[in-house]
Amino acid sequence: MANPSLLILAGDGIGPEVMAEVKKIIAWMGDKRGVTFDVSEDLVGGCAYDAHGTPLHDDTMAKAQAVDAVLLGAVGGPKYDTLDFSVKPERGLLRLRKEMDLYSNLRPAQCFDALADFSSLKQDVIAGLDIMIVRELTSGVYFGEPRGIFTEGNERVGINTQRYTESEIARVARSAFELARKRGNKVCSMEKANVMESGILWRQVVQEIHDKEYADVELSHMYADAGAMQLTRWPKQFDVIVTDNLFGDLLSDLAAMLTGSLGMLPSASLGAPMANGRPKALYEPVHGSAPDIAGQGKANPIACILSFAMALRYSFDMGDEATRVESAVEKVLADGVRTADLMGPAGGTPVSTSQMGDAIVAAL
Amino acid sequence: MANPSLLILAGDGIGPEVMAEVKKIIAWMGDKRGVTFDVSEDLVGGCAYDAHGTPLHDDTMAKAQAVDAVLLGAVGGPKYDTLDFSVKPERGLLRLRKEMDLYSNLRPAQCFDALADFSSLKQDVIAGLDIMIVRELTSGVYFGEPRGIFTEGNERVGINTQRYTESEIARVARSAFELARKRGNKVCSMEKANVMESGILWRQVVQEIHDKEYADVELSHMYADAGAMQLTRWPKQFDVIVTDNLFGDLLSDLAAMLTGSLGMLPSASLGAPMANGRPKALYEPVHGSAPDIAGQGKANPIACILSFAMALRYSFDMGDEATRVESAVEKVLADGVRTADLMGPAGGTPVSTSQMGDAIVAAL
Ligand SMILES: CC(C)[C@H](C(=O)O)[C@@H](O)C(=O)O
Ligand SMILES: CC(C)[C@H](C(=O)O)[C@@H](O)C(=O)O
Repeated sequence: MANPSLLILAGDGIGPEVMAEVKKIIAWMGDKRGVTFDVSEDLVGGCAYDAHGTPLHDDTMAKAQAVDAVLLGAVGGPKYDTLDFSVKPERGLLRLRKEMDLYSNLRPAQCFDALADFSSLKQDVIAGLDIMIVRELTSGVYFGEPRGIFTEGNERVGINTQRYTESEIARVARSAFELARKRGNKVCSMEKANVMESGILWRQVVQEIHDKEYADVELSHMYADAGAMQLTRWPKQFDVIVTDNLFGDLLSDLAAMLTGSLGMLPSASLGAPMANGRPKALYEPVHGSAPDIAGQGKANPIACILSFAMALRYSFDMGDEATRVESAVEKVLADGVRTADLMGPAGGTPVSTSQMGDAIVAAL
Repeated sequence: MANPSLLILAGDGIGPEVMAEVKKIIAWMGDKRGVTFDVSEDLVGGCAYDAHGTPLHDDTMAKAQAVDAVLLGAVGGPKYDTLDFSVKPERGLLRLRKEMDLYSNLRPAQCFDALADFSSLKQDVIAGLDIMIVRELTSGVYFGEPRGIFTEGNERVGINTQRYTESEIARVARSAFELARKRGNKVCSMEKANVMESGILWRQVVQEIHDKEYADVELSHMYADAGAMQLTRWPKQFDVIVTDNLFGDLLSDLAAMLTGSLGMLPSASLGAPMANGRPKALYEPVHGSAPDIAGQGKANPIACILSFAMALRYSFDMGDEATRVESAVEKVLADGVRTADLMGPAGGTPVSTSQMGDAIVAAL
């Protein structure tokens, strides 16, 4: 059988630095576990714009479609702030999501024991937290038409369209229910059905899919504003949360920040199965490109390394290898090894990006 | 001069209970301060639907347009969950907001010293917190057309439209800048300009109004997802936040929950000045109708009382009287008087809704 293929798009800012540490894990897997990946690399975001005048070249798009999984670092930076909307770094990422049809974005919000103190929330509220946000990623107001800035009379009007079809809702709901079955068997769906018709349809379809196909899973519905409150008040009440693209953007960032350790959190964006049975997939850390610390060896590579672990689990059916990587991360944290962002009052051994990667490889 | 007029719409659930305590304050003001209000009362929400088959009767709407200020309790309850979208209790509230053109929704998130322990956030993160969220309230995806659930091919599609005109953005921006000048002189504007054109226009117009009219106020811009994160991480970095209707819904609820004492938080919804110079105005607690505790004397009336204090300040130019009410609330809290929702590990004197109202009047 051919080696599993991986396209690395390190992107901008700290992207290349954190990705360098993932490559160490990949190398270790080839040496020690006999698992060899066919790795290719390319540009996305600002660096792609610098090279080609577009944040995602068509050739790169074609490569992404052809591989088993894409691993992305981060995109964006102040240098690109004044670019036109259509060529901003983010458009590269959004094009990948849309054209690969990665409709199910998995964002675990997990609190690591060694870091519970890092949260702005009280320890008992956050210790042991383990929730999974499933965000719809290819539709909604991110992609709906009509959109744009128009002139009406003598003033400008900004328009975007929130639009969800039944089948778009159904497939991401299924993805959430499937995940729940492997976890706490509970799904909470969030929308604003009290003010938006698209939210009414969302609620109906999620309920229908539940009743027909997943009646064994416990399902509840919550308005997204109440969801933001409840996530802040007592996040451990949730297991899996399923929500739309825009609410998911806010709520998953909120959930990530609850844990206090943004530099720790991975994500997976999954689409339909390809001919080989593997889902279309892109993995990326939740954090951004952090231009303020880029190139200084300060970045925390763990979110990117855990994104690779998600790739092992969800794309390559190597759950054991994924757990091995995750355990190595936990061990290193328990040992007090800390990049700058993880340096709290309790102290620890300060390390650079590269030393953190080495420590994790050593713990493997 | 005619007495200032006030329309009380107590609404559903705990609405009537908490409003009864406000009436004690109003009576006290007549007796002791020589300030008499012309008070009328009417129905909104589920109770209006029960009486008239609509959550807001046209006569009530006309009264609301005619008075100096509306004071609202809360709307909604499980009994009305299965009603058609068009007659749900919320529609009554949304109609008031829209037809009175209450475009500027002021939601203070304030942490009361005596209650700092109530938050799920750490004490140092939250102690002394005092931010003001200014939420656009009459436009955006709440009201944009087209909207609805349609059939396309053989499936349903849910559609809503996010729509902002330049003047809608400009007026709420002005409102935020004016408030900031009376507070910490800092405004942070939140949108998703990286993915939504309506967000691009939002950012541009806020910046233009700033540069032309409020260059003395410090202005920053933040993506709404980052805003949710930063509110969770270190909310004290903010003074005034201005944002659109939908983001404001989530972010203000999040900010409210940061304080841990939802039963404490008031809001004001303001429109353009009327002939008498007073703004169109509606005041309401941030909490909902809490049907689970309705009718049991358990509700905390403070949010509603503080909403009345906001009316004194913003509608009637009685800032001193408002401060008097707010100080009475603080004194009662400092004395350890506690409704059930405020009963923490530190204990206190448990009181009913009505006893809390009496205690505040006594402290006045
Ligand atoms: C970079 C940006 C376009 C993106 C989004 O809004 O989806 C980011 O915030 C995310 O959550 O992945
Ligand atoms: C009740 C509901 C329609 C309302 C809203 O979504 O605006 C509420 O959540 C609020 O924030 O006042």
